Amino acid sequence: MPSLSTVEIIERTKRGQGLGAENLHALIQGYLKGEIPDYQISAWLMAVCWRGLSPTDTFSLTQALVESGTRLRLRDRGIVAVDKHSTGGVGDKITLVLVPIVAACGLAVAKMSGRGLGFTGGTLDKLEAIPGLRTALSIDEFIAQVCHTGLVIAGQTADLAPGDGKLYAVRDVTGTIDSLHLIAASVMSKKIAVGASTLLLDIKFGNGAFMSDQESAQALASLMLAIAQRAGMTASAVLTSMEQPLGRAIGNAIEVAEAIDVLKGSGPKDLQYLARQLSAELLHVAGQAPTREAALPLIEQAINSGGALQRLSDLIEAQGGDSRVLHDPSRLPQAAISRVVPAPRTGYVAAINARALGYAAVTLGAGRQKKGDPIDPSAGILLAAKAGDALSAGDPLATIFAADTARAAAVFERVQDAYMLTTDPVPEPSLIEGMLG
Amino acid sequence: MPSLSTVEIIERTKRGQGLGAENLHALIQGYLKGEIPDYQISAWLMAVCWRGLSPTDTFSLTQALVESGTRLRLRDRGIVAVDKHSTGGVGDKITLVLVPIVAACGLAVAKMSGRGLGFTGGTLDKLEAIPGLRTALSIDEFIAQVCHTGLVIAGQTADLAPGDGKLYAVRDVTGTIDSLHLIAASVMSKKIAVGASTLLLDIKFGNGAFMSDQESAQALASLMLAIAQRAGMTASAVLTSMEQPLGRAIGNAIEVAEAIDVLKGSGPKDLQYLARQLSAELLHVAGQAPTREAALPLIEQAINSGGALQRLSDLIEAQGGDSRVLHDPSRLPQAAISRVVPAPRTGYVAAINARALGYAAVTLGAGRQKKGDPIDPSAGILLAAKAGDALSAGDPLATIFAADTARAAAVFERVQDAYMLTTDPVPEPSLIEGMLG
Repeated sequence: MPSLSTVEIIERTKRGQGLGAENLHALIQGYLKGEIPDYQISAWLMAVCWRGLSPTDTFSLTQALVESGTRLRLRDRGIVAVDKHSTGGVGDKITLVLVPIVAACGLAVAKMSGRGLGFTGGTLDKLEAIPGLRTALSIDEFIAQVCHTGLVIAGQTADLAPGDGKLYAVRDVTGTIDSLHLIAASVMSKKIAVGASTLLLDIKFGNGAFMSDQESAQALASLMLAIAQRAGMTASAVLTSMEQPLGRAIGNAIEVAEAIDVLKGSGPKDLQYLARQLSAELLHVAGQAPTREAALPLIEQAINSGGALQRLSDLIEAQGGDSRVLHDPSRLPQAAISRVVPAPRTGYVAAINARALGYAAVTLGAGRQKKGDPIDPSAGILLAAKAGDALSAGDPLATIFAADTARAAAVFERVQDAYMLTTDPVPEPSLIEGMLG
Repeated sequence: MPSLSTVEIIERTKRGQGLGAENLHALIQGYLKGEIPDYQISAWLMAVCWRGLSPTDTFSLTQALVESGTRLRLRDRGIVAVDKHSTGGVGDKITLVLVPIVAACGLAVAKMSGRGLGFTGGTLDKLEAIPGLRTALSIDEFIAQVCHTGLVIAGQTADLAPGDGKLYAVRDVTGTIDSLHLIAASVMSKKIAVGASTLLLDIKFGNGAFMSDQESAQALASLMLAIAQRAGMTASAVLTSMEQPLGRAIGNAIEVAEAIDVLKGSGPKDLQYLARQLSAELLHVAGQAPTREAALPLIEQAINSGGALQRLSDLIEAQGGDSRVLHDPSRLPQAAISRVVPAPRTGYVAAINARALGYAAVTLGAGRQKKGDPIDPSAGILLAAKAGDALSAGDPLATIFAADTARAAAVFERVQDAYMLTTDPVPEPSLIEGMLG
């Protein structure tokens, strides 16, 4: 492939023709150096939304983003660690459960997480609900914690794949967020820059996720796995349904409390089930168990022995947090007021609009309306009823936790309306829809 | 349609959803005022390339471009004039023949033309080969000349649809030139801003035009006619094949000389034919003849009487040019050297690569490699053989006119290679492939 001008790169992309690693590298480098203007990049991004990229070019774009910044090179340092990524969903606190479990089962975990986005929460915001806990670690601190504590969850440092950050900023204002190829390259560039040996991908779809249909989730999973493979990373992807919120808690402090419950062997059934299944899959692909099924007893042991809870305690303490929250949830931020939302009539919960509840939680202060907004860690919604439950009129649907009565009132109807009640019984929805890897 | 944010406009366009006149107006106004950045416009333009625009939105975009600048409002001033537009082709000097002919037949002509673009020449560059002739007329001069002389061909003033100029500049560097909707809105915005009553569109396709296939030409013609209709303009479109150069001359001075020949009743047969047919179509749709066929005798009369040539003389004099060129072609710029390109072997001319010859003429200085380059009006290529001709080895294919031998030598092989010779006779190609209106 000859070296192309930027216009030629745009034209070829628009015609669905390949670009080659050198041209993609030059595009990203030129953009980061300010030699290629935003208006050419945004036209190119829209052409990628239109035509996609070949698998080779998707990998080359990912590599170009990786090479735009610092690499942790964990594998080159002899550190064998695992990583996990979720595409995000309402009530998704799996990371807080899975990381301590797999660490208790002998895996080192090196995970960089994100903040809440749109109607979904973010692991960093959740962790920061724990008093004192720091997520802004330097790269040296991050690596030291993997080596000495065996598990770490931190924010991405600015020098990690900065090309992705600059690209994301322009995608955000040019309607070019939803390209599967761009999403895959963005996520994987950060995973490759960290350099774990094994990666578990939780690709969520449905009303409470960014992708609404299973076909898109499947396509994204395939793209990400192909990139992982080319990068020499063992990876597995699980497609999970997000038709209703995961577990019962939506909001930072209450999600931490719920994750702690699961690490103690209690908590909502769906969250218990999915956290175990995903942990088992990661243990299996990382070589700790011959099959996913064979990993399940290891997980039971890690929970029943208190080993998993201890590993979360280790992480909290290593990052300066107050680990007493594990045994005294009242040390987590507590909302000033709570208000129960009752069922308006008798019936079965046919569906719960997860996205609407996610946005309602953001309105309460659990997330940000715009970048830089402060978070209220105590705010959120705790579901009393989930899909399939039978209710009588007046039974609680959910409890709203808020800083004041006005805020609680502002979302009351939206929470109530998020529940679709029917007269006929409905089956419990399934959670795991596919496994790839 | 509610008023949308720029991102929402991009997103809706990307999904193929309508925008409405107000949103398109706000988009163009915001862009011209610098409130909407280039990178959002370029993403939107690529989304238009991808999904197109509805007929209503294409018209609204056109109107928004018209309203971005000055309007001549010819019809509101009681001036009934006709206009003609060609999408451009190699050797296309139809305007220089058609405008004097239809003026001689009683129509006022108010035409704004363009310069050479890519491998095609431009009417302004051709006219300026006539010593002294000015094409940079003010709007007042333009209107005065229509009223007093009855025909004018000038350059577009900067205050005519400036939104189109700004949009074109960003399209040029973002791979978003070739959208039929954007082309239609761009051309028609300038035609509507001038405001002639009747418009003839010559939509060219083939190797020597910007559109290679007839389907695209047909689609563009339909889009432009729909816009004309909504703007209250009578319009007709003719689809013409540009598989070989039109006539024999490619280059500014020699094209003027060839056009003069046709106005005198001689010149290449294909050019004579097409100039008459297009003139007849315009006379017909402008109401000067009940049918196209009925207009042909009027055209013969205009040519045979010398009336058409006189109208060209009037135009040249009104615009400060030396009308003696009409009877003494040696007053046109003459190239320093000429070189004949011979047929390498005996055969029939099966095809002539018009685009290659267009680019060769640009290399000789007949066009610009980049914006602002000077033009050599004397440079060009005069074809001795056209498609269907039988040749013996050594017979002339064409004559190169150049400023020096090095320049002539630089294109010699490209001119020779542009001729495809076969051993079997080939039929003459047809010129007019469709009529719409």
